[in-house]
Amino acid sequence: MIRSLFFAPANRPDLLAKFPRFAADCYVIDLEDGTPPAAKAQARSALAASVASLRAANLPGLLTVRVNEPGSEHYLADLEAAFATDADGVVIPKLEHPAQLFPAAHWIRNRDRTAPRKQPRCIIGGIESIGGVIEAVNLCRADPNLVAVYFGAEDFAAEMGGRRTALGNEVLYARSQVVIGAKAAGITAIDQAVTDIRDDALFREDAARGRELGYVGKICVLPRQVAIANEAFAPAADEVAYARRLIEAYRVAVAAGKGTIDFEGKMIDGPLLKRAEQTVKRAERVGAR
Amino acid sequence: MIRSLFFAPANRPDLLAKFPRFAADCYVIDLEDGTPPAAKAQARSALAASVASLRAANLPGLLTVRVNEPGSEHYLADLEAAFATDADGVVIPKLEHPAQLFPAAHWIRNRDRTAPRKQPRCIIGGIESIGGVIEAVNLCRADPNLVAVYFGAEDFAAEMGGRRTALGNEVLYARSQVVIGAKAAGITAIDQAVTDIRDDALFREDAARGRELGYVGKICVLPRQVAIANEAFAPAADEVAYARRLIEAYRVAVAAGKGTIDFEGKMIDGPLLKRAEQTVKRAERVGAR
Amino acid sequence: MIRSLFFAPANRPDLLAKFPRFAADCYVIDLEDGTPPAAKAQARSALAASVASLRAANLPGLLTVRVNEPGSEHYLADLEAAFATDADGVVIPKLEHPAQLFPAAHWIRNRDRTAPRKQPRCIIGGIESIGGVIEAVNLCRADPNLVAVYFGAEDFAAEMGGRRTALGNEVLYARSQVVIGAKAAGITAIDQAVTDIRDDALFREDAARGRELGYVGKICVLPRQVAIANEAFAPAADEVAYARRLIEAYRVAVAAGKGTIDFEGKMIDGPLLKRAEQTVKRAERVGAR
Repeated sequence: MIRSLFFAPANRPDLLAKFPRFAADCYVIDLEDGTPPAAKAQARSALAASVASLRAANLPGLLTVRVNEPGSEHYLADLEAAFATDADGVVIPKLEHPAQLFPAAHWIRNRDRTAPRKQPRCIIGGIESIGGVIEAVNLCRADPNLVAVYFGAEDFAAEMGGRRTALGNEVLYARSQVVIGAKAAGITAIDQAVTDIRDDALFREDAARGRELGYVGKICVLPRQVAIANEAFAPAADEVAYARRLIEAYRVAVAAGKGTIDFEGKMIDGPLLKRAEQTVKRAERVGAR
Repeated sequence: MIRSLFFAPANRPDLLAKFPRFAADCYVIDLEDGTPPAAKAQARSALAASVASLRAANLPGLLTVRVNEPGSEHYLADLEAAFATDADGVVIPKLEHPAQLFPAAHWIRNRDRTAPRKQPRCIIGGIESIGGVIEAVNLCRADPNLVAVYFGAEDFAAEMGGRRTALGNEVLYARSQVVIGAKAAGITAIDQAVTDIRDDALFREDAARGRELGYVGKICVLPRQVAIANEAFAPAADEVAYARRLIEAYRVAVAAGKGTIDFEGKMIDGPLLKRAEQTVKRAERVGAR
Repeated sequence: MIRSLFFAPANRPDLLAKFPRFAADCYVIDLEDGTPPAAKAQARSALAASVASLRAANLPGLLTVRVNEPGSEHYLADLEAAFATDADGVVIPKLEHPAQLFPAAHWIRNRDRTAPRKQPRCIIGGIESIGGVIEAVNLCRADPNLVAVYFGAEDFAAEMGGRRTALGNEVLYARSQVVIGAKAAGITAIDQAVTDIRDDALFREDAARGRELGYVGKICVLPRQVAIANEAFAPAADEVAYARRLIEAYRVAVAAGKGTIDFEGKMIDGPLLKRAEQTVKRAERVGAR
């Protein structure tokens, strides 16, 4: 369950030190876009200390490292450095081919086996290029260690040469294809970032649209977005109450031999019951808002 | 031509008996979601009588049976029961693989051949799961007996863990992929249900959007939706009049050696002529509204 | 760079003669939809003279010939006639299979080689059928001589039996798939036509939506649309100024060891920098509006 995937640059110990203040479901120490090229080598060297210090802080969520993209000169060195730490997993950006997952999967299956962990490490993939979007369905099911993917709309739109709008129709196809790929593979789907710094309303609206599509969490590029994401991806109290009423009404109906019921103005059968059960289950895990 | 695909539960003879009151293009006796699990076996046993009684009522449309999904324990028994009746075909929900069509296609090709029918039985498929949407193009062309598919947005959205909105952007990708798959295969595409019981305006709007995408009919979960669907998928009188004027203007233009004309504010060439001809042809089959 | 792909019928020398008045990036002498069937043979015969005369006029953009669709009886004769002229390339409508590109590619690789040209001839493909949209990704990368594709929404919608709206949600899936296919192959993506003759505002809005998706130009079916397209696909002056400020701020930040900056209310990192650089580069090529 990753409602909030919260990034801070690997070369900014001051920002990393603030992770414990924000209750993210997953924290990301970012060696990629957040760290400028000239600072990448040093940030990599500092990774062990950063992870150790954050481990000591008992973060409430997963702690991961985003490595540089598979095509870059940094990729294998970043993975090596990340796996040398006690991080819970790695975030691999700009995934385009299943083979790009191999080095990380190899380490998880082999090296980690000789030094067993409570939980196996996880891989979170970024689908944020044209090639990645085209291959989304295959990428999501490419490796059992890939537990989640995020859709990176900014990178995708940059490669397309397109322009972002608040409504986001220009990325609806790609955003849909990625969440469908993730759900087909049974993995977690994390929605695009909102880069507007002071526009919390836009973040909320965008999260609502992501949730409608089936996303269960969101990239957070600002600390204040973490709490909003956690809330946005929890069901609302009235949704939960409605779901409970629906489930009860359906139980009564089925006992009376009916498979379809007229419930509060809607024709309810299997699919709507299933959605209501998901809502209640989700509220039990993350609470209602 | 299926403008209205009208469902009633197989275990509700009282509702099935009302079929003749509503002029659907295709009626469905529903053994799946409409019939609760505990009632399925008995509903299957009652199928022969239900079909016989509805046959005697001379319904104006096709009479079909929706069996339970291919993955369920009921699938083959339901098919067996459906083919033992005089129904015009079967509706197979949650199609995901071409092979799932095989048992029904086998019966049509073999058993029905020894007891010939005026019209071969048909299969109508439901594309309403993530796997089905991903495979939509292949599914639609998988078997010559598959004459139509419907897009089941509620089931799809439930599996995605998404949330439905009135505008429906959250299913636009899937709804588009299914209608494209159907049209590529040359089969009938039937649009999603609207579950709001008293909101006829929403049904009309949703039908209009489905028609824009290329759908030619709609799932009806309520009797009152049948007439609305029949009307919504017929061309409007002013559309037909416009189309006739366009065709005539184009005829005159072509005779004068022009392939492109300025007609009532639009630049008209082949594609718009083709659409006008479709409109007139459709009005000749189903009337205008 | 094709901001405006401007069509006139091959059988209308009066309209072709007006090409020099409008500064299109690419002119198309149209043997397909613009020329009625009975006039096609004669238009083909007149092609050499039309091209020669337009060559003499020193058009500012590419001069091409749209042949009839690959499935038609005219296809090979049209190609033969087009390649016998000094045109810069051919436009092949309704592409559905890579093999359909073969005859044109063969001529470019073989015949043109014996009579070398400054620039090799180009092929521009039309993706405007259901089959073409389904195969868009493969079609776009099928041949190195294919330098651009356009999305033909009217033909596509006609084959779907759908209806066009101003907003265009009914073709969003197809329009997205085509531009993604083009960008994945690194070729130019040209957006759909607007057939409303006097509605320049609609043309502008539709061009803006196309640009958001990543399209870099538009089909023009009317002379007045050429200048509007050229303008619509150039960056706005304030966009360029914003991009220049962003690039400078990012340069300063990187020098200070930051990879992510808070810039005028947005959280900026790699992707947004990349988009800003594209904007400036584009303004340097086509100017700002």
